[in-house]
Amino acid sequence: MNDFLYYSPTEFIFGHNAEAQTAEALARHGARRVLIVYGGGSIVRSGLLDRVTATLRERQIPYALLGGVQPNPLDDKVREGIALARREKTDFLLPVGGGSVIDTAKAIACGVPYEGDFWDFFSGKRAVEEALPVGVVLTIPAAGSEASGNSVITLRQGMQKLSLRTPRALRPRFAVMDPELTFTLPPEQTAAGIVDMMVHIFERYFTNTPDCSLTDRLCEGALCSIVEEARRLLHDPRDYGARANIMWAGTIAHGGICGTGRQEDWASHFMEHELSALYNVTHGAGLAVIVPAWMEYIAGEKSGKLAQFARRVMQVPDNGDTLVDAREGIRRLKAFFRELGMPLTFREIGAREEDIPELVRRLHLHKGPVIGAFRPLGPADTEAIYRLACRQ
Amino acid sequence: MNDFLYYSPTEFIFGHNAEAQTAEALARHGARRVLIVYGGGSIVRSGLLDRVTATLRERQIPYALLGGVQPNPLDDKVREGIALARREKTDFLLPVGGGSVIDTAKAIACGVPYEGDFWDFFSGKRAVEEALPVGVVLTIPAAGSEASGNSVITLRQGMQKLSLRTPRALRPRFAVMDPELTFTLPPEQTAAGIVDMMVHIFERYFTNTPDCSLTDRLCEGALCSIVEEARRLLHDPRDYGARANIMWAGTIAHGGICGTGRQEDWASHFMEHELSALYNVTHGAGLAVIVPAWMEYIAGEKSGKLAQFARRVMQVPDNGDTLVDAREGIRRLKAFFRELGMPLTFREIGAREEDIPELVRRLHLHKGPVIGAFRPLGPADTEAIYRLACRQ
Repeated sequence: MNDFLYYSPTEFIFGHNAEAQTAEALARHGARRVLIVYGGGSIVRSGLLDRVTATLRERQIPYALLGGVQPNPLDDKVREGIALARREKTDFLLPVGGGSVIDTAKAIACGVPYEGDFWDFFSGKRAVEEALPVGVVLTIPAAGSEASGNSVITLRQGMQKLSLRTPRALRPRFAVMDPELTFTLPPEQTAAGIVDMMVHIFERYFTNTPDCSLTDRLCEGALCSIVEEARRLLHDPRDYGARANIMWAGTIAHGGICGTGRQEDWASHFMEHELSALYNVTHGAGLAVIVPAWMEYIAGEKSGKLAQFARRVMQVPDNGDTLVDAREGIRRLKAFFRELGMPLTFREIGAREEDIPELVRRLHLHKGPVIGAFRPLGPADTEAIYRLACRQ
Repeated sequence: MNDFLYYSPTEFIFGHNAEAQTAEALARHGARRVLIVYGGGSIVRSGLLDRVTATLRERQIPYALLGGVQPNPLDDKVREGIALARREKTDFLLPVGGGSVIDTAKAIACGVPYEGDFWDFFSGKRAVEEALPVGVVLTIPAAGSEASGNSVITLRQGMQKLSLRTPRALRPRFAVMDPELTFTLPPEQTAAGIVDMMVHIFERYFTNTPDCSLTDRLCEGALCSIVEEARRLLHDPRDYGARANIMWAGTIAHGGICGTGRQEDWASHFMEHELSALYNVTHGAGLAVIVPAWMEYIAGEKSGKLAQFARRVMQVPDNGDTLVDAREGIRRLKAFFRELGMPLTFREIGAREEDIPELVRRLHLHKGPVIGAFRPLGPADTEAIYRLACRQ
């Protein structure tokens, strides 16, 4: 086990009608002037935005509104938000939505007190030292942004999708999580979220760090539960218990506890980011295409851990041959993604095999000559994985 | 899944020589005048106290010392600490030790700013509103006090052992955790700690709350790892990886994540507290005596969950009969406690069958007419469990 610092100070307010506690949480965390950030019309149509703003009006907490955040959020909206927050003298950001909305709010939060361009933080030119506090009303589980100090934004010029990771500054002060808000998510969004949270665990689970039995077991336990509960949701999308387990699993998956003391990987995420930047594909759908291809490519060298995954999570009986069991585990994982209605190939997400050299070029330009840690990948490897993803 | 609020703001500094970061952590959390609280001579003899105080001197943070905290800590030492902290104008408490030392420091922390008697908080007369901040250097894993807002103190007059639970005020600001500090723990202390952390999970795992698959799986995963790593420690007490997994498991077991959204039980802890108050037995050893008896007593009514535990944690093959599997799980758990060198009967801990009526009387006097939630227990039940614990 590696040395680590684990710090997760977010207060999670979880359960039925949790959003009614939003203003109370804002007041407890010292908010005086709030900027509410949100995405499309669904939170307006569902009445959620009204219910949240009503709690603020009741407590006489002034607020401004910034709507229109898109999936794979762009820098334009961040700039708009920074200008608005400065004009409104905002001292607290309240994103109401999923990962894109939260990540946009975080980028605004560090951009407001900084005199330069906020992109400096994402390009690695500057470290975040100061940021406005952020509190979250979560409507789409999976991204895990409600429990992390991270943000992912795409620069429109050049469609460069980069992630910013801060140990403290951007961790939300609180996260309001009502599983009922996820009852009406479109099935493909629920499914993409489930894939995303599973892969957040994979990025930590597949490691070469020795002596991580506790976090191995926690990862495997969370994965088992996600698979079980996802199947209950396919049967009944309004099953509160299943929605609650999935929502909390999204937080556990990315909240950091699963990664304590482990070297993490992140190659699959990096490879997917290039897909979603180029084709604007949903992140979880892109991951469903990349991850099985990645597993197949490394199976020969990494059959031990893949077999452990197969046996403990995908319920593959132990045949005494790690490679055989690893491959059966990958087969079952793909079948599970299919059950969820997820794509498995380039074609299904509108990606083109002829773009692969460009994807590889951009990937290594943005992320360096070698990506990943479990099995470090150079351009020949990532090209081979993208090609596997065309025909699985 | 029940609604819940989860908040765990402690910063965990984990790994090799983590104690060298103590003064840095104190400074980051605003400490100016520190009271160091510790127990017996082992941290003096090992040089740990010197190494910790050296980091404070280097940073010029003034400190006072309060040693001599005993296992099953008494109110006398708390009172001594409150007086000393007031005299020294302490603004930050630094316990260096295990659960007894941390719990004593927490009791001092809420006693200093309170004009009445600190026992008011433990007897339930008053809620803690204000407390000095606490940071921890952990030397004995298991109690989980490094990650909780709780404290357990025994009032010498009447030997009344009571626990105080606060949602926020007494949660440590940071916890320094170096697994190497646990290399030299006596085997019986290591073993008692392992039992204690397992039972911290049991108190959350055995619940009637429906739809808790995620936390069920996390509990089971942590328990599997504890059993595996404990066996490695029996083989080599200086195995860093095993010590690290066990130490972090102690925090995960009691840090709250395993209990999110679940009704908790705590009957076994309450029954054990009477044993350790009356006979001054080590808490973990007392639990090894109580818990299998408790499981046997409820097995007929609660075979479903006990069989799940048996199959998923104790590796009992599924025989299709929950009661048979539950009993085999209990048998294996007892065998595991024996492997650790733990007692299983009243006689082995110096408890007497003829004291049972008095134990039951005190238990229900202190904790109410019915204890526990998974299977609520009245005096006839707790008497039967104490009697089972005489002859298993």
